[in-house]
Amino acid sequence: MTSTRPARRGRPGHHREDVIRAGVELFNQQGYDATSVSDLTGRLGVTKSALYHHVDSKAQILEIALDEALGGLEEALADALTRETAADRLTAIIGGAVRVLTAKQPQVTLLLRLRGNSPVELAALERRRRFDHRVTELVREAQAEGLVRADLDAAVATRLIFGMINSLVEWYRPDGPVDPVLLGHEVLAVALDGLRPRD
Amino acid sequence: MTSTRPARRGRPGHHREDVIRAGVELFNQQGYDATSVSDLTGRLGVTKSALYHHVDSKAQILEIALDEALGGLEEALADALTRETAADRLTAIIGGAVRVLTAKQPQVTLLLRLRGNSPVELAALERRRRFDHRVTELVREAQAEGLVRADLDAAVATRLIFGMINSLVEWYRPDGPVDPVLLGHEVLAVALDGLRPRD
Repeated sequence: MTSTRPARRGRPGHHREDVIRAGVELFNQQGYDATSVSDLTGRLGVTKSALYHHVDSKAQILEIALDEALGGLEEALADALTRETAADRLTAIIGGAVRVLTAKQPQVTLLLRLRGNSPVELAALERRRRFDHRVTELVREAQAEGLVRADLDAAVATRLIFGMINSLVEWYRPDGPVDPVLLGHEVLAVALDGLRPRD
Repeated sequence: MTSTRPARRGRPGHHREDVIRAGVELFNQQGYDATSVSDLTGRLGVTKSALYHHVDSKAQILEIALDEALGGLEEALADALTRETAADRLTAIIGGAVRVLTAKQPQVTLLLRLRGNSPVELAALERRRRFDHRVTELVREAQAEGLVRADLDAAVATRLIFGMINSLVEWYRPDGPVDPVLLGHEVLAVALDGLRPRD
């Protein structure tokens, strides 16, 4: 999945990151399947040969962007797994996932809208499923520890928590007034304690 | 927005609903922008003239499907607004939205993935925004009544609740073991009381 190929030297004013960023923007605006290489060169104002100086294909742009999203989530999970208690691990992955979603919003948006129409998409969906399964394990451990109600199915609880978290890609504005760390605390508070005031 | 044109009589074995259903399936699988009229006729195994016997355009299929999703949500809201207290109105719209999402999953999936690249999409997004604003009002009233914590921004709370609800379109399986009414109660319980056990 991970592209290990080093970034080649771009023309003045165009870097590989610009190509990836433009690709992700177009994929999110009109869909990956509907985006042509001509759309990409048009957006960047470069020739096809200039584009292929940076990347091998449209699929490689998708692969790199998805790796940024998934890599971020996996790092947050690895960090959460170093914590002592299940409660700490669960709160760490919720906060970490909110940080990744706000920091890498375009790439995560792409990940969440995948349809699985190509090998790159299927591989990313499989990697996302492994992440989900490991988070479900954390929820199950948190149930055993008493942080999470035991009457809820752990997989359903995980999906509801991540439903809240993932909705951020639709409405979070990086230039808005909401601080990502405070937002992480807010999501955690709602996930654990709900909207009803505690007595 | 709403198509008031009556369904014309289809050929034997093909009804207008089949055309809408096939269109929604294709739009969800490969994106609206990437779906051609040839994809539609190919999926249905009909000629273009047979297709145009039922609908005027690809855009009309989108419009009808989005109207089914939005109409369902608006009906659920109208029903919720007949309740006496803000608490009852909020719990009614959460349960109602879960019912609409599970009953009209393909159409709501389409609604939630809209990119706003056409007049039909922009009109639907505007109608969805009006729905969201009215639900935010319900949350605000529920805060005034003490059902919902007053320290949370009502718009953020609404987005987190609907983040949970909307995630259902990604993982709910109509042929699975989860009953939609029970699921509505579950979502409501998590939204109001959170995942932590109450003492």
